[in-house]
Amino acid sequence: MKLMRIGPVGAESPVVRVDEDNYIDVSDTFRDFDEQFFADGGLDSLRDLVAERRNEVLPFRGERIGAPIARPHQILCIGLNYSDHAAETGQPVPDEPILFTKSPNTLVGPDDDVRIPRGSTKPDWEIELGIVIGRRTSYLDSVEEARASIAGYVLVNDVSERAFQMERGGQWCKGKSAETFNPAGPWLATEDEIDTTNLSMSLDVNGIRRQTGSTSTMIFDPHVIVHYLSQFMVLEPGDLINTGTPPGVGLGMKPPVWLQPGDVMELSIDGLGHQRQNVVGPR
Amino acid sequence: MKLMRIGPVGAESPVVRVDEDNYIDVSDTFRDFDEQFFADGGLDSLRDLVAERRNEVLPFRGERIGAPIARPHQILCIGLNYSDHAAETGQPVPDEPILFTKSPNTLVGPDDDVRIPRGSTKPDWEIELGIVIGRRTSYLDSVEEARASIAGYVLVNDVSERAFQMERGGQWCKGKSAETFNPAGPWLATEDEIDTTNLSMSLDVNGIRRQTGSTSTMIFDPHVIVHYLSQFMVLEPGDLINTGTPPGVGLGMKPPVWLQPGDVMELSIDGLGHQRQNVVGPR
Repeated sequence: MKLMRIGPVGAESPVVRVDEDNYIDVSDTFRDFDEQFFADGGLDSLRDLVAERRNEVLPFRGERIGAPIARPHQILCIGLNYSDHAAETGQPVPDEPILFTKSPNTLVGPDDDVRIPRGSTKPDWEIELGIVIGRRTSYLDSVEEARASIAGYVLVNDVSERAFQMERGGQWCKGKSAETFNPAGPWLATEDEIDTTNLSMSLDVNGIRRQTGSTSTMIFDPHVIVHYLSQFMVLEPGDLINTGTPPGVGLGMKPPVWLQPGDVMELSIDGLGHQRQNVVGPR
Repeated sequence: MKLMRIGPVGAESPVVRVDEDNYIDVSDTFRDFDEQFFADGGLDSLRDLVAERRNEVLPFRGERIGAPIARPHQILCIGLNYSDHAAETGQPVPDEPILFTKSPNTLVGPDDDVRIPRGSTKPDWEIELGIVIGRRTSYLDSVEEARASIAGYVLVNDVSERAFQMERGGQWCKGKSAETFNPAGPWLATEDEIDTTNLSMSLDVNGIRRQTGSTSTMIFDPHVIVHYLSQFMVLEPGDLINTGTPPGVGLGMKPPVWLQPGDVMELSIDGLGHQRQNVVGPR
């Protein structure tokens, strides 16, 4: 299944995508794709409902697309998780996953504007595979158990302000948490739909290809990441984990290239759809 | 006013403390002291309700005390914010606030057990003054404006696992986010009740005084912190900000002293009450 939320900001309706043109409305049965939905086994109920309604498809009519999940309890991020990206930033390949966080209210839709924060000098892009947690998860005994904790996968842009991230005290969250800094979607593909071992990823800025990668070069795969994080904290249903970016970020170019108001970012991952964001100046 | 939440875990009722023995129940009018409560101007409505009910006090009957706010959108933490604490950890006094985060689901009541996580070798204590945000806050123009963004203050124990924090990849959140790692309460004192310029703070472990401090030696005061953070992210109503710890943490002792199952931590800050936690072993 491909879960989507469509409609105005703050008033999105949960739907299930059928194909590029059609969806099944489920908003009469499910309030939202939020923590409670996943905690209550909502994915199983949703599957049954979609089977019942397979002949009740509706056409998309150009509605805004929101992030496919409601604001999560937390957004966790793995740093330097592609060996070639670690190299371009001049940092060693990590021995274990590097963890940092983003404020949950950075979550926006896949085609919403990305706003450069005030005082920003080094805004940058990062295409990533996002994991959505499907159930409360703590102290997994094995990497294999992680599969059952994953609701599905989503395309995300882990927008970053490099000066805030690296020149303002050493902890990265300061450069990751500006409003609009986490476009996600257009859909959440459930775990059974996606084999994450070799997904092509690409990000263009103004039509110029900047990032080209594949999840096959991830250092720590999604199951390893979920198992690992579960040793340090309790993951809640609906939590989002950004799993790191392949090479080609602005920081890695010589000289570096930063986002400007008026830029357009376009991103895709196999099976997870396409995003398009206009970059706008500070409020 | 002093806001409290009393009752079993996950089913706390919002009340207002009158004195050590008595409270006013407000749970028929307010569902919880959560993001929506603060966003809707709940503090003003609560003040009116308490005035109406000043003759309807009820006695505490030994109910469990929960954290005085519901699980927040985010828990932000300021590092090394007391010059003498920075010295004991061997790190320089920061030029600007150092920011890191804790998972919001670390929040527990002031007298709940603190659980040492699996694999932990260096669990430690940190008494702190916590700020609760009262309204959506972004890009404050001045430090003075921060006062209107603060709902009030709360006593917190920013429990930390130093090996996870400092020996596992450099970002601190990994050592701050284990379950039970953020006892808060017993009450939220509203902003008008508390002058944060010179509050005594103390923390004992097993009856031995370990931390003695005063908010007068904070490097960045609460108004400076809220103004500063608002330049990097949007603060939501109900967000919790831990503002750093004074000297006397286990990490700073020679040799270091770590928490053990069976230990008892007792903490107080002037005007913000007293906490008592039993330390228990891993699940």
